[in-house]
Amino acid sequence: MSRLTHFDKKGAAHMVDVGDKDVTERQATAAATVRMAPETLKLIQQGDAKKGDVPGVARIAGIMAAKKTADLIPLCHPLALSNVTVDFLIHEADNAIEVRASCKLKGRTGVEMEALTAASIAALTIYDMCKAVDRSMVIADTRLLEKSGGKSGTYKA
Amino acid sequence: MSRLTHFDKKGAAHMVDVGDKDVTERQATAAATVRMAPETLKLIQQGDAKKGDVPGVARIAGIMAAKKTADLIPLCHPLALSNVTVDFLIHEADNAIEVRASCKLKGRTGVEMEALTAASIAALTIYDMCKAVDRSMVIADTRLLEKSGGKSGTYKA
Amino acid sequence: MSRLTHFDKKGAAHMVDVGDKDVTERQATAAATVRMAPETLKLIQQGDAKKGDVPGVARIAGIMAAKKTADLIPLCHPLALSNVTVDFLIHEADNAIEVRASCKLKGRTGVEMEALTAASIAALTIYDMCKAVDRSMVIADTRLLEKSGGKSGTYKA
Amino acid sequence: MSRLTHFDKKGAAHMVDVGDKDVTERQATAAATVRMAPETLKLIQQGDAKKGDVPGVARIAGIMAAKKTADLIPLCHPLALSNVTVDFLIHEADNAIEVRASCKLKGRTGVEMEALTAASIAALTIYDMCKAVDRSMVIADTRLLEKSGGKSGTYKA
Amino acid sequence: MSRLTHFDKKGAAHMVDVGDKDVTERQATAAATVRMAPETLKLIQQGDAKKGDVPGVARIAGIMAAKKTADLIPLCHPLALSNVTVDFLIHEADNAIEVRASCKLKGRTGVEMEALTAASIAALTIYDMCKAVDRSMVIADTRLLEKSGGKSGTYKA
Amino acid sequence: MSRLTHFDKKGAAHMVDVGDKDVTERQATAAATVRMAPETLKLIQQGDAKKGDVPGVARIAGIMAAKKTADLIPLCHPLALSNVTVDFLIHEADNAIEVRASCKLKGRTGVEMEALTAASIAALTIYDMCKAVDRSMVIADTRLLEKSGGKSGTYKA
Repeated sequence: MSRLTHFDKKGAAHMVDVGDKDVTERQATAAATVRMAPETLKLIQQGDAKKGDVPGVARIAGIMAAKKTADLIPLCHPLALSNVTVDFLIHEADNAIEVRASCKLKGRTGVEMEALTAASIAALTIYDMCKAVDRSMVIADTRLLEKSGGKSGTYKA
Repeated sequence: MSRLTHFDKKGAAHMVDVGDKDVTERQATAAATVRMAPETLKLIQQGDAKKGDVPGVARIAGIMAAKKTADLIPLCHPLALSNVTVDFLIHEADNAIEVRASCKLKGRTGVEMEALTAASIAALTIYDMCKAVDRSMVIADTRLLEKSGGKSGTYKA
Repeated sequence: MSRLTHFDKKGAAHMVDVGDKDVTERQATAAATVRMAPETLKLIQQGDAKKGDVPGVARIAGIMAAKKTADLIPLCHPLALSNVTVDFLIHEADNAIEVRASCKLKGRTGVEMEALTAASIAALTIYDMCKAVDRSMVIADTRLLEKSGGKSGTYKA
Repeated sequence: MSRLTHFDKKGAAHMVDVGDKDVTERQATAAATVRMAPETLKLIQQGDAKKGDVPGVARIAGIMAAKKTADLIPLCHPLALSNVTVDFLIHEADNAIEVRASCKLKGRTGVEMEALTAASIAALTIYDMCKAVDRSMVIADTRLLEKSGGKSGTYKA
Repeated sequence: MSRLTHFDKKGAAHMVDVGDKDVTERQATAAATVRMAPETLKLIQQGDAKKGDVPGVARIAGIMAAKKTADLIPLCHPLALSNVTVDFLIHEADNAIEVRASCKLKGRTGVEMEALTAASIAALTIYDMCKAVDRSMVIADTRLLEKSGGKSGTYKA
Repeated sequence: MSRLTHFDKKGAAHMVDVGDKDVTERQATAAATVRMAPETLKLIQQGDAKKGDVPGVARIAGIMAAKKTADLIPLCHPLALSNVTVDFLIHEADNAIEVRASCKLKGRTGVEMEALTAASIAALTIYDMCKAVDRSMVIADTRLLEKSGGKSGTYKA
């Protein structure tokens, strides 16, 4: 008794039919947290547009990745996102940077995967730019913070 | 005193010049762990090619994502990967599936980002296929397990 | 007296203007048949999620290809597909696997090319996975089975 | 006793490791034949750069598709193709256009899939440009004509 | 006192929220002019579908590039273009070819970037095809000629 | 008597065969200049990582575009670039920003198109970010500044 909607009765994966869903305003916010050595965080914090802006590059990577979600996640629908933002919270006590990505759409299906993809790729970009000094960084807790719109309503983590 | 090699002396991001590095065999393995509700794990375990093969779909997504890494991570080099594998370990006690992705290359730069991207996208694909039954899944501990080859030598987490 | 709508009066190729067409429910189904040696078909049939699931991989390739149609066929419009399915019929007497791909859209233009692209790429993926044992496989009869919606109405092969 | 090299012993799909294969000159030629109504073929034959050059557009689509093969076929390796050509043979007696695509590479794995993908997408582009006048066109006999280079040597259909 | 709408109050780049804008008919036309040696222009003019159709190839490149705009320009929205045309004006006195690209959309945001991207990539394709005979070609005056639709109304250069 | 190497004797476009060319170090630098209103330039100059870093975003767009060149320019070869840089020169007297993009490769064909594509897309990204305040910006003089390596040797504009 499968309840996984991405498979039909015979177990075949498919892109779920959303043609009959209502066009509503849908939004989602996801987070991913990059934990690192204290000196790595300091290097990032010292940077700016003049000395190397790690979050600036990671933000662009995250925004562009949101637009590629349907190209990456096999059963996602192509979506005409109306808004994408990617922000960063520094958690100094934890030597961590939290990526927060939000997406919006007026459409027939939710944008959770777009927000999660943006947060994941922004976090991986931070890893890429700092890996020469710190290979042991960990991306912890990639997850959905909240979503709203659509038949399943509002979710908050 | 920046040591972040992805920025030049003026702080401008750039694709690091790898033209003078040796062509050597390079490999990397990365992991990402999807934690979920016990019933979600059971649904996935019951599945197969007949009833819905979640890991089978996630594996293909991960392999294809490894090939898109340079398209996703702004300063990564385009690489002619010679091998990509994606595997899954079930951790029943933790209600978790661990994705393990390995990449290989005979080339001038490492494949850590390719392995990390494959693991991340495979994990996000698991999330996508199960989110209708469990929105609170968390992708924990995306990280590099080991890499070898190249001037910086071998790393083990 | 050209009737090929993808060219203007001077013979220049263009993306046909569909801005004034109605938004209607449109769907299309296409097929492609892979003929092979009897032993190749047997190898595929013995496979499953445990021993190598050829149709499972080909299905994902077909679904993802449907989403790339506008990137592949120069004059196709980018479309927000609402549904894609790819299925397989085994024709044992003919030593053949028939791929059937269906696409749906609420939009201004038809989805025939999306269904044909999904079927073609799924068929090529079967070829790829089996070519080490059988290079003489042939993809026969890639064609539109039916389409509905839009001004030109319903077509059945 | 699986002999399908794209699966490991546990049945998991993977990108086959080609790192130890020799770098040799490899080439492949594939064909796909588009059968159509006699009037459709006439329309195409009357066209040229001034009145609508169907093969000219299809050729570009095929060449560009060869470069996307690794993005389309899940287990294909990304390859640095050194040469791609796409040509067209008119078979008037059969009311058909045969697409012939050839690819070359100095590399570690063959280019059969690149040639087959180029031929398939060129054929689909012909279909797209003529479908408004002839929906019943069929792409028959997409297949490998020959390949050479590499350990498995030369193949001729 | 920044008025650059692609940054928020803290200076972070973001994809501007267009969710509350009206769906209207929007169109834009852009141009780019390739200046070259007189003999280069002659070579191009002698060409046709039989002897090498430079504008024919450049047109397809421009049309396909319009569809990739959101993939290239970081903060552009993905758009379902309803129409793309690319044309060429020969300016013999100036030894120049002017590319003109027009895009249309029924949607929530303008298509200026799509028209500019189509014109730029068509011009670069002309450069690519002729660079073996003339490396000193210059693409001059890439600019918006006009746009209409949306709240900011009509613009004419 | 065509000398355009991208066409064969029958006038068919093709990807030129570079398989027999030597693997040498190749590099190219291209420029594109964005002319704008004086106030637009001031707005850009006031920006930084805190208030909106236009060149920072344009640089990433240019670097990522260099990697997509073979996807955009139909007859370009896919290349494993070893280095990409994008820089900006402010020409205050001219109210202009000059983009300079350099690419490097150890390979069989030149990287002029990669440098030109990077410069063009970086310039278009500047246009995109400033177009709400200045639609009349012009991208002037997109051209090759120099290239070296390969049989045709060194070129300087």
